[in-house]
Order: sequence, then C-alpha cells, then structure tokens
Amino acid sequence: MEKEMTILLAPDSFKESMTAKQVCAAMARGIHKANPIARCIEVPMADGGEGTMQSLVDATGGTVHMLKVKGPLGSEVEASYGIMGDGKTAVLEMASASGIGLIPKEARNPLLTTTFGTGQLLRAVLDHDIDRILIGIGGSATNDGGAGMLQALGGRLLDDKGCELGPGGAELRKLARIDLSDMDPRMGKVKIEVACDVTNPLCGPAGASYVFGPQKGATPGMAAMLDAGLRHYADVIQSQMGKTIADVPGAGAAGGLGAGLMVFLNGVLKKGVELVIEYTGLEAKIRQADMVWTGEGSIDVQTKFGKTPFGVAQVAQKHAKPVIAFAGHLGEGISELYGQGIDAVFGIMPGACTLETALQQGEVNMERAAENVMRLLMTRKREN
Amino acid sequence: MEKEMTILLAPDSFKESMTAKQVCAAMARGIHKANPIARCIEVPMADGGEGTMQSLVDATGGTVHMLKVKGPLGSEVEASYGIMGDGKTAVLEMASASGIGLIPKEARNPLLTTTFGTGQLLRAVLDHDIDRILIGIGGSATNDGGAGMLQALGGRLLDDKGCELGPGGAELRKLARIDLSDMDPRMGKVKIEVACDVTNPLCGPAGASYVFGPQKGATPGMAAMLDAGLRHYADVIQSQMGKTIADVPGAGAAGGLGAGLMVFLNGVLKKGVELVIEYTGLEAKIRQADMVWTGEGSIDVQTKFGKTPFGVAQVAQKHAKPVIAFAGHLGEGISELYGQGIDAVFGIMPGACTLETALQQGEVNMERAAENVMRLLMTRKREN
Repeated sequence: MEKEMTILLAPDSFKESMTAKQVCAAMARGIHKANPIARCIEVPMADGGEGTMQSLVDATGGTVHMLKVKGPLGSEVEASYGIMGDGKTAVLEMASASGIGLIPKEARNPLLTTTFGTGQLLRAVLDHDIDRILIGIGGSATNDGGAGMLQALGGRLLDDKGCELGPGGAELRKLARIDLSDMDPRMGKVKIEVACDVTNPLCGPAGASYVFGPQKGATPGMAAMLDAGLRHYADVIQSQMGKTIADVPGAGAAGGLGAGLMVFLNGVLKKGVELVIEYTGLEAKIRQADMVWTGEGSIDVQTKFGKTPFGVAQVAQKHAKPVIAFAGHLGEGISELYGQGIDAVFGIMPGACTLETALQQGEVNMERAAENVMRLLMTRKREN
Repeated sequence: MEKEMTILLAPDSFKESMTAKQVCAAMARGIHKANPIARCIEVPMADGGEGTMQSLVDATGGTVHMLKVKGPLGSEVEASYGIMGDGKTAVLEMASASGIGLIPKEARNPLLTTTFGTGQLLRAVLDHDIDRILIGIGGSATNDGGAGMLQALGGRLLDDKGCELGPGGAELRKLARIDLSDMDPRMGKVKIEVACDVTNPLCGPAGASYVFGPQKGATPGMAAMLDAGLRHYADVIQSQMGKTIADVPGAGAAGGLGAGLMVFLNGVLKKGVELVIEYTGLEAKIRQADMVWTGEGSIDVQTKFGKTPFGVAQVAQKHAKPVIAFAGHLGEGISELYGQGIDAVFGIMPGACTLETALQQGEVNMERAAENVMRLLMTRKREN
C-alpha cells in the first residue's frame, strides 16, 4: 500500500533557478529513485506573478507564443503569451510587454510609461478564439491607469481639442473624453480574470502613484502629478461611464491597470494563486493524491500572504491531505505555516555555499531532497 | 501509537559547530516541538577521533579532568581525560597531550616530538581505580613509537652506555636496551583498548614514518631516518621481548604509538566507532527504540569508512530499525549509504550562506530540521 502512493507535485518556480515544471521533474526523479512505482501528478504552479504564464502552459500542455509589441517606453519588445491546453484560455503577464524589468533603472519614468503593449497582447490572444483570459499584472513599469492598453484595443482618449492623448501617466490630466466606439468587439465576449493580490485604491495616499510610483522611478513631485492624473481619469470615467472606480480595492494595482481592466474590460480581480488553482483544476487532482508536495525558492512567514505553497496547502487541508513543502531558502517564521495546512518544510541545500552555486544546483538539490523525503516515508513499513 | 515513538539519538559532533551532546539536545528540542510525548534516548557518539572523550563522558554522565603534562615538544600543556559514568572506565585522546594541533605549523618536527604527555595521562587515570582505558590515538604530532609514553610510565629506554634516551623519534636508533622493571605496576591490571582505524605497519613504505611523517613536518630525509629508528626499535623489542611488532596492522598508527601500546601495555586495537558503540551500550538502547537518528558535520561517501553514522547504522540494521542521518554538509556519494542501514539523509542548512554562519547556526538549523522530520513522520496518521 505504502509503495503505491500517489503524490501531487504542485510547486511554484524557484526563481532564477528552476521553472515550476523543472521543480516537478526534479521532485519526480527523486521520488522514483526511492520508490519506482510511486505515482506522481505534476502540476507546475504559480501565484499570479512572474512565471504564471509558463506554469499554466506547462501544467496543461499548452503553447507559448511570441509577439513584438510596444514596450513601456515605446520601443519594440518581444513579449509572450500562452494558450492553455484546452485551447480556450489565454494567459498573459503584463510585465512581459510593459514590465519594469524591460527598462534600465536610470530610464524609469512613470510619467511616460504606457501599458500599450499589454493591450497589443490582449488583442493578439483574441485571434485564438478563446473564451477567457487570465492576466497577471505584477511587475509593471507603468502608472497610466491602463490608458495605453485601452488605446491598443481601439479605445480613444481625447483631450478637450479632440486630440488623442500621448502615452504615459502624465497625459491623463488632459483627458476630456473617452471614446469606446472603435473598441475591438471580440473583447466584450471574453471573460477576463486578473491575478491581483494587492488591494490598493486607485488614488490617494494608499493609491498607485504614492505607494508604487517610487519603485517605478517617481519622485515625490512626480507621484503627486501622477495621483492627480489618475484622480482626473477616475472623474472622467465616473461622469461619462457612470462607474465609480477610484476607491475599489485593487484599482490601484499595476499603476491603475487594475482599474482599467475592471472599467473597460469587465475584468474581475482575484488572488493569483486562487486563479492558478482554479485554472489547473488542482482541487480535483488533490482528491486523487495521498499527499501533496509543494515548494518555492524561498519560504518564510510571507508565504502565508498569497504565495503558492500556502494556497496549495489550503486546498489540501480541505481534503485532509498532508503537505510537504521544499525551499532553497527557509526564512524566519516557518513555524507559523504549521497547522495552516503545511505539515513539514525542508530546505534542499546540501551545505554552506554561495547563492550563485545554490541557484545553479537547484535541480540536483531538489532531486536529492525529494529522494530522501520519499525514503523517509518508505521507512514506516519497517517500523514496529 | 505513532506519537509514543521512542527515538534513539546517536549523532557524532558537528565539528567546529556542536558537540555530540549539543546535537542530541537540538534534535530532542525539534522532536518535542513536533511531538511532545515522543521519547528520546540521547547517546552522544564519536568514532574514536576528536571528541570521543567528551562524547563518552556525556553519554554516560561521567566527568572530565584537566591535567598539566609535557607537550609534544616538552613545554607544558593542559590536557584532559574522562572518567565514564560507571567510574571504572577512563577515556583519553592522545592528541590532548601529544597532538599535532598543539604545535604551530613551523615548529613541527617528528624527530623531536614525544608521546611522554600521553604516558602522563595514562598514569593519571590509574589513580581513579579503573578497570579499563579507551584511548583514541588520532591527530598525533609524534613518530616515537610510543617511547615517550613508556618513559612516562616508568619504563626506561637505554643506549649502549646505559644512558636514558632523550625525547623524539631521532633517538630510537641509539636504543640498546629496554628496562621495564620500574613500570607502574597498576598498568598491568587494566584492560587497554585503542581506537584505531588505520592498518599501517610500523615500518617500511606503508609505515608510520613514510605515510604519516610528512604531515607532521618530516622531509623525505627525516622520514627515512625515522623509519630506520622505528625499524631498530622493533628489532630491539623482537630480540629482547620476543614480540614481533613491525608488521602488525595498526602498529604504525600515531607514529608507532599503536606498536608501543600493543607491546608494552597489551593494548588491543579496534575500530573507533565500534569501541564507542560498545562503551555506550548502544546496541541495547537501539533495541528499545523505534528508530535511530544520527548525524555528523559532513556526510559523504567517506562515511562508509568508519564514521559514526555508518557504524550506528550497522547496528540499527541488525535490529531492523530505520536510521535517519543529518548533516551540515552533504557531499558526493550519499546514495552509496542507502541500503547500508541509512534510510535517509537530510541537510540541515536553511539556504545559501557562508561556512562561518553555518557553523554558528548549527543548533537552530539542527532543531528545525529535526522538527520537520518529526512533523513528516507524524503525517502518516492522516494518510489514507
């Protein structure tokens, strides 16, 4: 009985070391070294952040597509999106087209950056005859309220002379009128779900500009200007469309892209890991398993706040399945995870070494740790 | 049933980080965090090398005694010996009195170094009314065949003019006669067991001088001189005492101290870990346990060759008890330990870090690893 166990493998990626799929494979190799007839169900996971597209494609046997789009400062970048194995679901990450990582630090300027490329990605996935889109919005370089995205989809943002606004958050204060008559009509037929773990409003001291602006290059003066721009943007939306968006939780995510997705595309914001759990059908797979293994590059007290191992553990706990977590780095507060569905946490490191070596050796270390945890589980046969 | 498990804790020290007793305590803390009613039997272990005296004292509730003796180059050093909890067994390490670590590198010279201090330690333990002595002979600075030890115990080594030889291996070539008439008479009533894992003969290319001389500071010329000295020493022993020692396995251990212990004190050489297992009564304790936890600072393919985790595992395997091993550093060839009694091996490191930090954080890391292994063992209750 022991040997025939089914183990669900549902790790996140180990950032800068392994994709979630590679983690699954390393876990499975270790497990099978110890127990060749154990059954592994591999479900590469993510939490809505970086790697979400790749994991959902990997988990469902989907495809990744490349596309040249306008980057956050207007020059062309090579972005990507995924079509899940069902052929009906697109997954994209705004950061692929409009992310902070695409701009060198000295060039970061949220007065100028645009979500136009994200809109181009959305337009591209519509060509695949899909029913729904999951969009991850972490890691943005922008503070334009999603205005650029709207423009790429055919919406028009006009000033009081009827001229189209330029790119960037600085332009929003000139907004007089929004014209949605030329919007891509297919957009309205698709369900959009937004992976979003932040609850910041669009404007004000807790809003996009003041809280997230600085990390995108905003000085205090720029943040004030950006905040005023988003406020004006919300006012125009309110008066013209009758939608109150400024204080909706999450409207301030990704420089206000959260607001834009809600207002113009009827996007629904959900916790990232919950969406990934839903899109991978994780719960049904957990029901089939005897235990669940998860993991992430780093596990610590923050893991409670929307990280993959915690989300996975919550589902497993519902079905009373034991959960073992693995990490390259165990930080403070691990003990707060016990009793929340995570039964045990193991570091995979073989000894003192540099971070560089640790990242390089991820697969070997994961495989060995998995093998030994499986070996430990096998000992129970021999005990009195 | 699960919760009432009894776990035998039998680790070696983690060198430069924790004594074996500290490892036991950290393991027990981790275990009890996960399972307050688990029963731990703590048996600090060693393999006959550094830390053996401390572990045997700790394992049996014995006492450590300090003593000023003559160091390897004649100047006074503070050495120590242990009396085990039974009050009838002394444990000492030759390195405490005559070890290479007592001399700065530039002063090392096996022509001059003496085991006299080791003889003083032996003499001191006789005052405790003991029945047996375990002596560890690793880490020697000497190449004197145990001549210094003999002198400290009242034996006399005379040249052809009847004058006492001076200290050090260089003097042996002048040996004409050995006079044992003034030897401490109590010595003959005590059983002496020598922890020795090497099998080198006293003389020749595989002997003490050529193989171990260089690491004690011998040039090739010095090694040849030392080898000739030990050869002559063996010849005198042969002709005068009728004992053939030159080619006995282990006679070349510790610069020929192995030979001296066998010839003059009827010492019996055994593998270090086997002696420690015997002296701690480990086998009887393993019988009472459901499983065995062991460990050492570093575990790798070398662990098979006389290291504590392997020795402990051999005994546990005889009684079909699962063995879990922990280490600060997992080296190459771990997989060769599986199926040899070691069921699973866990690193205790929480992530990439410097060796210095790893050594400092040993107890916290050991405790966390132990807690999580126990937590994993506890999950079985919940599995289907």
